[in-house]
Amino acid sequence: MKVLRGKLLVGQSGGPTAVINSSLCGVIQEALGQRAIEGIYGARHGVVGILNEDLADLSQEDPAEVDLLRSTPGAALGSCRYKLAPEDTPEGKAHRQRLLDVLAAQEVRYLLYAGGNDSMDTLNKILACAARQGYELRGIGVPKTVDNDLPGTDHCPGYGSVAKHLAAIAMGVGLDMQAMRLSDPVVVMEVQGRFSGWMTAATALARRREGDAPHLLYLPEIPWNRGRFLEEVRGCHARYGCCFISAATALKDEQGQPLGAPTGPFARDAFGHLQLGGVGSLLSDLIKQELELKARLVRLGPAERIAMHFGSLTDRDEAFALGEFAVRSALAGESGKMAGLERVSDSPYRCDPTLVGLDVVANAEKLLPREWINDAGNDVTEDFLRYARPLIQGEVPTPIEGGLPRYARLRGVSVPKKLPPWGHD
Amino acid sequence: MKVLRGKLLVGQSGGPTAVINSSLCGVIQEALGQRAIEGIYGARHGVVGILNEDLADLSQEDPAEVDLLRSTPGAALGSCRYKLAPEDTPEGKAHRQRLLDVLAAQEVRYLLYAGGNDSMDTLNKILACAARQGYELRGIGVPKTVDNDLPGTDHCPGYGSVAKHLAAIAMGVGLDMQAMRLSDPVVVMEVQGRFSGWMTAATALARRREGDAPHLLYLPEIPWNRGRFLEEVRGCHARYGCCFISAATALKDEQGQPLGAPTGPFARDAFGHLQLGGVGSLLSDLIKQELELKARLVRLGPAERIAMHFGSLTDRDEAFALGEFAVRSALAGESGKMAGLERVSDSPYRCDPTLVGLDVVANAEKLLPREWINDAGNDVTEDFLRYARPLIQGEVPTPIEGGLPRYARLRGVSVPKKLPPWGHD
Repeated sequence: MKVLRGKLLVGQSGGPTAVINSSLCGVIQEALGQRAIEGIYGARHGVVGILNEDLADLSQEDPAEVDLLRSTPGAALGSCRYKLAPEDTPEGKAHRQRLLDVLAAQEVRYLLYAGGNDSMDTLNKILACAARQGYELRGIGVPKTVDNDLPGTDHCPGYGSVAKHLAAIAMGVGLDMQAMRLSDPVVVMEVQGRFSGWMTAATALARRREGDAPHLLYLPEIPWNRGRFLEEVRGCHARYGCCFISAATALKDEQGQPLGAPTGPFARDAFGHLQLGGVGSLLSDLIKQELELKARLVRLGPAERIAMHFGSLTDRDEAFALGEFAVRSALAGESGKMAGLERVSDSPYRCDPTLVGLDVVANAEKLLPREWINDAGNDVTEDFLRYARPLIQGEVPTPIEGGLPRYARLRGVSVPKKLPPWGHD
Repeated sequence: MKVLRGKLLVGQSGGPTAVINSSLCGVIQEALGQRAIEGIYGARHGVVGILNEDLADLSQEDPAEVDLLRSTPGAALGSCRYKLAPEDTPEGKAHRQRLLDVLAAQEVRYLLYAGGNDSMDTLNKILACAARQGYELRGIGVPKTVDNDLPGTDHCPGYGSVAKHLAAIAMGVGLDMQAMRLSDPVVVMEVQGRFSGWMTAATALARRREGDAPHLLYLPEIPWNRGRFLEEVRGCHARYGCCFISAATALKDEQGQPLGAPTGPFARDAFGHLQLGGVGSLLSDLIKQELELKARLVRLGPAERIAMHFGSLTDRDEAFALGEFAVRSALAGESGKMAGLERVSDSPYRCDPTLVGLDVVANAEKLLPREWINDAGNDVTEDFLRYARPLIQGEVPTPIEGGLPRYARLRGVSVPKKLPPWGHD
């Protein structure tokens, strides 16, 4: 195979995770050692940065700061939620042409894109366009999503850390609720996770003994029923004197209607996905009104996915390894694929890197299997716990400065632009 | 001074903190070494446990588990929000008599009560009643509140850990927001803290460099004005492309009306205090409607105060030391006082234990001083940061088991009851 020489461009897209920067670190550190790679650039705010030719020269960063990316949450290059217009529209054509013009002008031959379902779709479209125009470009996706809903991989980097954080929070709030149960006997913890129940399910990892929180899990995979819900909460309170509820923000009722969904100008995101977030208030209000029990609400929102102060070492290391693997795969001639994880065994836990077609991942979603949810539809099974437990093992040794994490600070040296500014963003 | 022999009874009251169990550990471990103390009992759910003669024999606990209390959040004895009825009512008289009957029947001579303003008031009332009846009882309060609003002490154990947690969350979500600013440029983090701004102010510890989150702080000490608020958010967004807002749940407008306060049966707690919690939704909705910017909401609620997975070592150690100090003070003949902290110096940081009259603390509250808030009323000053920084230093070495904290598990051996059951609870 001929050696393809050129620049490597890496971008981050979609919601950040605790470990997407660890993947970035893996990409940079692996690329630095590859002679075929003649420059390492970062796209600022993902595909938006490519459109604007707004790139950072990552080879000019302090290696110590690059190394700190391993334990820095957020998305150090900047992320985006930007949907390419359909190809058969004038805007869609202009987008694609501009992306290719920038890649060609900057001599980019390796495109690494870290993101979730939507981002893999974007990468797939860029590669298809390059192929049609005969521009040699190798693109590999790096999976990233706290939602854990990507097909073709055992799990997604980002999930282990969010699972660990959610479980630690559920464990602590569970103790708080036990202590306060005479006056404040119910907690509703609203958990994100797009349209799947993986994140909500992870709160069950908090349980060590019979009676520990969480007591009831409401997952988007199971249609929610008002009467059954109230009965289950009442029963739990009767049994334990308290009730900890983990509720997915994407819950739907039996008619398929989202619970507590907002309306108005921000009801949908750029990809047309419904924005969620009213489930916790709705459920806690219902408990107050119908059961006359005080219900407290925990809603971390974006705070769920940033907890590198208590990150999963397993997750961080897998994210890093997939960043490295993606670069090596591209250099080996692979393209149009996403780096994924294949589970070899649960105990001892082992996952190996693998490649999966972008078309398998793009715009698809993997839900929590029905057999990992109990018959009553309000809890997970031991099989789920066996799957999830290895993913939260180990603590990230985040450097601390003045009592708080010391996160990476990139200089962000801009790559000189070679094209005139683009007017379409 | 004659040696007063008898049982020591310790109770926990009010909302838990990350370190109220560290104080409990200090009480138990100190009491174990004192010959005048003939038994160490814990009241289950504070004063409710005394009324019900529902006590645990803490001397029968495994010393290793007692030691784990140092790094266990919640309130291991159970807590309560229970207000004694006024003394001039039949119920109030009956309450007080019952409390004294239980203390006398169980030969309790030392009463240690960990809590906040309301709890110190309860302790004060019990002591007044014992004095009137000629029952020799020494009572010392152990301060505990994340709100940091107790007078007579430099700060309250529990505040350092919640401050550290809030700052870590603000730092991480700040990075998330920076990364996502093209689509999700605003974050509103709603912070509790009863009627003072101490907790909200602590989020400012997250800032390391110009432009870091949080950008705007809205504190209950400063009346909130809609027009000014929108102008400030707009200005911040224009400057940084994003805006992180820390907003106290107890914000009031210029007419003194609480923002977003709930109504209905749970609008007030047992002490008649207004229950809060709608500020974050109100502010983020306002930003969406008036500024047409997407605003994400972070609302940890009870999850703020349980973060022993990232607790402050300084806070944990001070909580422990005040537990020990309270016991030693009672043995030395002190009563009717709360153990407090007196700051000797900022750098090197040093606080010494001190005693303060319960009447100074009971039902009073210490607000954030106006001179620690900037002129615009939307930030804290360097003086506040100098005060707060030492309180978040050091990380608690919480034992981890299977990727999550291993918290203490008490056996909870009940003390045999000596009185007939009480019918009033």
